[in-house]
Amino acid sequence: MSRPRIVIVGAGFGGLNAAHALGGVDADVTVIDRRNYHLFQPLLYQVATAGLSPAQIASPIRAILRRAPNVRVVLGRVSGVDKQRHVVKLDDHEIEYDYLVLATGSRHAYFGHDEWEHVAPGLKKIDDATSLRRRILSAFEHAESMAPAEDRQRFLTFVVIGGGPTGVEMAGAIAELAHVALRHDFRTIDPREARIVLVEAGPRILPAFPPSLSEAARKSLERLHVEVRLGTPVSNCDESGVTIGDEHLAASTIVWAAGVAASSASRWLGTETDRVGRVVVGTDLTVPDHPEIFVIGDTAHALGRNGKPLPGLAPVAKQQGAYVAKVLRARLSGKPAPPPFRYRDWGTMATIGRRAAVADFGWLRIRGTLAWLLWGLVHVSFLIGFRNRLVVMLEWIWSYLTFQSGARLITGPESH
Amino acid sequence: MSRPRIVIVGAGFGGLNAAHALGGVDADVTVIDRRNYHLFQPLLYQVATAGLSPAQIASPIRAILRRAPNVRVVLGRVSGVDKQRHVVKLDDHEIEYDYLVLATGSRHAYFGHDEWEHVAPGLKKIDDATSLRRRILSAFEHAESMAPAEDRQRFLTFVVIGGGPTGVEMAGAIAELAHVALRHDFRTIDPREARIVLVEAGPRILPAFPPSLSEAARKSLERLHVEVRLGTPVSNCDESGVTIGDEHLAASTIVWAAGVAASSASRWLGTETDRVGRVVVGTDLTVPDHPEIFVIGDTAHALGRNGKPLPGLAPVAKQQGAYVAKVLRARLSGKPAPPPFRYRDWGTMATIGRRAAVADFGWLRIRGTLAWLLWGLVHVSFLIGFRNRLVVMLEWIWSYLTFQSGARLITGPESH
Repeated sequence: MSRPRIVIVGAGFGGLNAAHALGGVDADVTVIDRRNYHLFQPLLYQVATAGLSPAQIASPIRAILRRAPNVRVVLGRVSGVDKQRHVVKLDDHEIEYDYLVLATGSRHAYFGHDEWEHVAPGLKKIDDATSLRRRILSAFEHAESMAPAEDRQRFLTFVVIGGGPTGVEMAGAIAELAHVALRHDFRTIDPREARIVLVEAGPRILPAFPPSLSEAARKSLERLHVEVRLGTPVSNCDESGVTIGDEHLAASTIVWAAGVAASSASRWLGTETDRVGRVVVGTDLTVPDHPEIFVIGDTAHALGRNGKPLPGLAPVAKQQGAYVAKVLRARLSGKPAPPPFRYRDWGTMATIGRRAAVADFGWLRIRGTLAWLLWGLVHVSFLIGFRNRLVVMLEWIWSYLTFQSGARLITGPESH
Repeated sequence: MSRPRIVIVGAGFGGLNAAHALGGVDADVTVIDRRNYHLFQPLLYQVATAGLSPAQIASPIRAILRRAPNVRVVLGRVSGVDKQRHVVKLDDHEIEYDYLVLATGSRHAYFGHDEWEHVAPGLKKIDDATSLRRRILSAFEHAESMAPAEDRQRFLTFVVIGGGPTGVEMAGAIAELAHVALRHDFRTIDPREARIVLVEAGPRILPAFPPSLSEAARKSLERLHVEVRLGTPVSNCDESGVTIGDEHLAASTIVWAAGVAASSASRWLGTETDRVGRVVVGTDLTVPDHPEIFVIGDTAHALGRNGKPLPGLAPVAKQQGAYVAKVLRARLSGKPAPPPFRYRDWGTMATIGRRAAVADFGWLRIRGTLAWLLWGLVHVSFLIGFRNRLVVMLEWIWSYLTFQSGARLITGPESH
């Protein structure tokens, strides 16, 4: 009898955690990803704002899983799933499964305005981050070489759309770049003239946090000279800038941090989804009528204890990945199924800038230097690989002490 | 009376050293470069072979020159020079000069076979290195997912053309990647099946070194399982591989390290050049009949003490940059001109792999571990910025101890 075949699509937090926990089981595990590396997305904004290098927050999937001989890695793009024949379709071949785990994450959503994407790129992939870094650094370069003042101001205006953690972190990091790291580098412009605007449609930033921390974050941003515009939905984005309500902000750099939608997994399965395209799963994270198909992470619509859908956060995906591995281990060895999945919320954090962050642990809410140190410690400790931990920590200590940022390169096709 | 204007085109080793030495003089200095960073080219092959990250060997030009208030940096592409009107032409404006320093470096030369470039890319820019890294890592991925053995062997064959220092370093680094860092990462292939071929048209590799060191380098490469093919010029390169003499090597990855030609500076000036397009300059590095125009580094054909043209090496460019600054300082203050430029040759080195390198100091020739340690020390100490020095040293120590490489990312448009 041949060994059961488990196929995991996506090596993000969920898929990788599942694969890791399935190392050594009596089954052939295949991990499929379009990229050869696992990306630590929570720090991607630091690549976009020239603080870190891509390789410092990404690790090759093969290297992470090398000690699990029953796990193989396939680099490829999945184009569909055949639930009847139990195969995953790739561009040029198919892979059969007995159990399937879909952990394909999410992508940006422009809520019906896909034409905004090329002027207001989002931040999901390494290539997004290096291209955003190119845009931001080039904007200062253009401003330096521009004669007319109004053009100059347009190049020095940065609009971040979306007041969630990514938007807050991006706005804070751009402000620090302009006011601290680039401060003495130009002769025509003063980078401190840069205008950084954070636009949020709702009544407060960081809506997932308690109102007192939202307010603290807003104050921290304003101390960094970020204009926070609340209750103002974006009505248009184009080459000239952003329109919020009736007002037009002339800006050459726009960052989209306003919304995500689930990846294509629901289309592959043809099953029920929620409003943002996430696959509705049961309490064991399987798809209705398909106990052999699991969907986890940002791709899944699973309910929390409070009856609300779980948020698209790394800890949710990681815990779901580990849970799926537990369910599969039980099935493979004929043991009873574990109890339904329950998300353990250890708290959430967001950072704004030097010695400014907020953290909400439910029973404890902190802000300022302590929250910032804690944010750094937690993020470094969750990085994969001792080398990355050490190097990122050194980069941070270095930037903190010297007020410099480490990776200010304009690379890629559009550069000068 | 307005201050004299000095324009330096190119922020490589030559241009940057000149700009640095002109900080604080009573003149307005403008540095023009197409990129916003100075690149430490001698370590670029380590980016191409996944050992280092781009930002670790590149530093923003503005940051390097920030303490020189009389020096400004312009990001732009020079399209020509008007010697009569004393202006440098950029895409959209012109910059006037009283003194001009051209330090625009060199590019790959395919000796009349420019159609080889897209299959056999060279290594001059960061984008070259990350694209080569993508090709090399993707080749292993393709081999892993390939069924037919002959296709697999083609993907596992890497041909490096050119036996100078860059070719030797590339071949050695690819061999170490295959035999050491990737060793346990695949399930279908064994990366040690990779075939790495170094092709040199002349009778020995490292022709600028004494024959005994060339021979030592060849033996070190062969210990790393690199096939060294001497006296075999390449007659064709295409998608299927490389033809050397009558033999066809099926290979999916070809690296061009065989030749360089000077950049476009000679075309801008319309003056006498040598065979590879370098501008012939006098003993004070100025262009005949134009004492206000200096040409230095890889772009210049200057004679050494032995009557032969100086080689295109970083130390030559650096010393020439410093010399030009000295000449200009003398002219600006009305002092007599310094004596003709003389290159001080401190020796040359090339590395092959772990504990294998050669170094020639004229009076002393060394090889093996000591040469390798020396090579590392010298290269780290020449990096710009303490942070880069520290981080590169850590990456090297880490790779040495763990047999891993630090930046194995497949990024960019062609990736999966």
